[in-house]
Amino acid sequence: MTGEVVPDRLLLGPGPSPVSDRVRLAMAQPLLGHMDPAFLAIVDNVQAKLRRVFGTANDLTFPVSGTGSAGMEMCLANFVEPGDGVVVIEQGIFGQRMADAARRLRARVISIEVPFGEMCGLDRLVETLEAHPEVKLVAVVKAETSTGVLQPLAGWADEVHRRGALLLVDAVTALGGLPVDVDAMGLDIVFSGTQKCLGAPPGLAPMTAGRKALDRLQQRRDPVPSWYFDLLAISQYLGKTRAYHHTAPVSMIYALDEALTSILEEGLEETWNRHRQVAVSLWAGLEAMGLRLMVPAEYRLPTVATVEIPAGVDEGRVRRQLLSRYGIEIAGGLGPWAGQIWRIGVMGQGAQLSHMMRFLTCLRECLAFEGVSLPSGLAAMEEAYGKWGRD
Amino acid sequence: MTGEVVPDRLLLGPGPSPVSDRVRLAMAQPLLGHMDPAFLAIVDNVQAKLRRVFGTANDLTFPVSGTGSAGMEMCLANFVEPGDGVVVIEQGIFGQRMADAARRLRARVISIEVPFGEMCGLDRLVETLEAHPEVKLVAVVKAETSTGVLQPLAGWADEVHRRGALLLVDAVTALGGLPVDVDAMGLDIVFSGTQKCLGAPPGLAPMTAGRKALDRLQQRRDPVPSWYFDLLAISQYLGKTRAYHHTAPVSMIYALDEALTSILEEGLEETWNRHRQVAVSLWAGLEAMGLRLMVPAEYRLPTVATVEIPAGVDEGRVRRQLLSRYGIEIAGGLGPWAGQIWRIGVMGQGAQLSHMMRFLTCLRECLAFEGVSLPSGLAAMEEAYGKWGRD
Repeated sequence: MTGEVVPDRLLLGPGPSPVSDRVRLAMAQPLLGHMDPAFLAIVDNVQAKLRRVFGTANDLTFPVSGTGSAGMEMCLANFVEPGDGVVVIEQGIFGQRMADAARRLRARVISIEVPFGEMCGLDRLVETLEAHPEVKLVAVVKAETSTGVLQPLAGWADEVHRRGALLLVDAVTALGGLPVDVDAMGLDIVFSGTQKCLGAPPGLAPMTAGRKALDRLQQRRDPVPSWYFDLLAISQYLGKTRAYHHTAPVSMIYALDEALTSILEEGLEETWNRHRQVAVSLWAGLEAMGLRLMVPAEYRLPTVATVEIPAGVDEGRVRRQLLSRYGIEIAGGLGPWAGQIWRIGVMGQGAQLSHMMRFLTCLRECLAFEGVSLPSGLAAMEEAYGKWGRD
Repeated sequence: MTGEVVPDRLLLGPGPSPVSDRVRLAMAQPLLGHMDPAFLAIVDNVQAKLRRVFGTANDLTFPVSGTGSAGMEMCLANFVEPGDGVVVIEQGIFGQRMADAARRLRARVISIEVPFGEMCGLDRLVETLEAHPEVKLVAVVKAETSTGVLQPLAGWADEVHRRGALLLVDAVTALGGLPVDVDAMGLDIVFSGTQKCLGAPPGLAPMTAGRKALDRLQQRRDPVPSWYFDLLAISQYLGKTRAYHHTAPVSMIYALDEALTSILEEGLEETWNRHRQVAVSLWAGLEAMGLRLMVPAEYRLPTVATVEIPAGVDEGRVRRQLLSRYGIEIAGGLGPWAGQIWRIGVMGQGAQLSHMMRFLTCLRECLAFEGVSLPSGLAAMEEAYGKWGRD
């Protein structure tokens, strides 16, 4: 890197998350052509593994050639037509982003606005769908990275399908870290990113779409406005015809393949459990230090903790110190929560008790530099970790 | 890779091209966050190096987070508005693709159709611009990967600018392999891909846009229809504000950084010369074998040779044998040239005399299996290589 040395960081922000040696080394493998039978076999394997992680039998399950937001663009550009009524749950930055993207595609967006830190009840969805029977699509974020809210989706698909609409779910900060269960939940279109709980670098957006969604796509009046994100054209490459569309990002596919293998070796349930156990321990530690979590425990996201900044603390200085003194990355808030909160990722290889202990210790030191003396959270964290699963 | 072993291939197709060990290992470096000052410094360096390779002082010069086609989408989605008159030179599959993409964006596309293997004369452009004074943008492929034609662009920018339009150039199979000279040629918007002559894996699309193009962007009537490809939003991340847009593909940026460093170490002119010297040698070898090149020498692309398949040869079987017996990848034709030609890439690390000698020897053996006995091209190749630059 021309003398540039990449410093060693513990990535505990809301993504990218730490990537294991085996996944990083997988990227260094020799290149294959995107039409090489050996590469197509790897693509098939990645698709099969993604189906397991998504909990789906959907044929069309694959990594979009772009980052998580490319997955959002892919899903909206294909399943939204100009003039379509689209309900978007705006419960944070990533919900707002979907509304923005849908409007650019000339959808008539009906927003359900939810305050930061809250989730959207099924009753509000039903009420909105009753008032707007023309709605074609409902878009919601399962795990809102900006607020730390886990949006329960029980019963959503039934209400959406009863009205002939499709349910599109942003699972960026969910997939691999908690159950997504596409088929069991009846989710029609779901996208994610590789750089969160899957433990791969940023650069790919796994997505899946079911039968009802594909039927809708076949019936589009206009062509998909984006050539790059034309799902039917891309599905020709993934399917039997193997027709060239665009050159797949070969090395990133290697990384995703290895990351999915790691998850399936650990076991899907075990991976979800590890994320939750470490999250619960982190929460206990933060609370024992006297810090306040922004989201009530019943819909708190295990993969991103949002924490109120104590009075009198320069939050940016604390983050810069964590990074420069200790090599630990966490993030600040976005939108109305900018300057109000920290965001701590518990994702992929970052979801380890030891990482969180190191972080709590360093955070406490940085707060002490700021003149804020807090008790240690380590004992509470250790206790919560040991007790977890035994309640 | 779960027991999957990536076979060793010599990639001599029209991309991806071979990637050096140092570039592949650069990808295996530890991850950084996309807002980490250490990563932002790498992004700045990549931008500076890209400016040198593009031959531009344009501020907005960066790698789009997607493959080469994402670069095309980025450029069209930002600089085309619904109803805009857009001239597209359709001289191969990649010209046709730009026309398709522009139509999806609701441009009024005026095609200049050029037969496969031909280039477009300046007179045809001028004639079309005279007939369509409303044209806002002219889109052309500098190096047409499907036909092997090098499109000369001398005088184009003057004619386009005189009429108040912008010149958009696809430099996917050009950048790093031959002069692109954005500023000297007056090109307004140019995109490329990392997997061709730059010698990095597929996954990024370097692009640049000049002042006139950015002014046009500022004056758009409608928002850019794609959230992911919104250039003004992305430029906020690249510029001083460092506003988060999407998570950059960190590992791919490492690879591009290292690939650009390699090119600048070799020297830009030296890199172009190497591509041309090896190409000229390959042409001489192929012709000495009695094979016919599809494009006249005066506008033949150095980076992709297109070769007519000899009568009686099963071209697919030859390619499969090259791959399975010798580990060499080349490609077949596209569109009207499917089944008619082979395409041989002379790109990046693939542009080495020794690779081409190995290829010619193996091709001759595969043709012998097909019952077609051809003379050796090696002596002619060697002679052309030695003579190059001394004429």
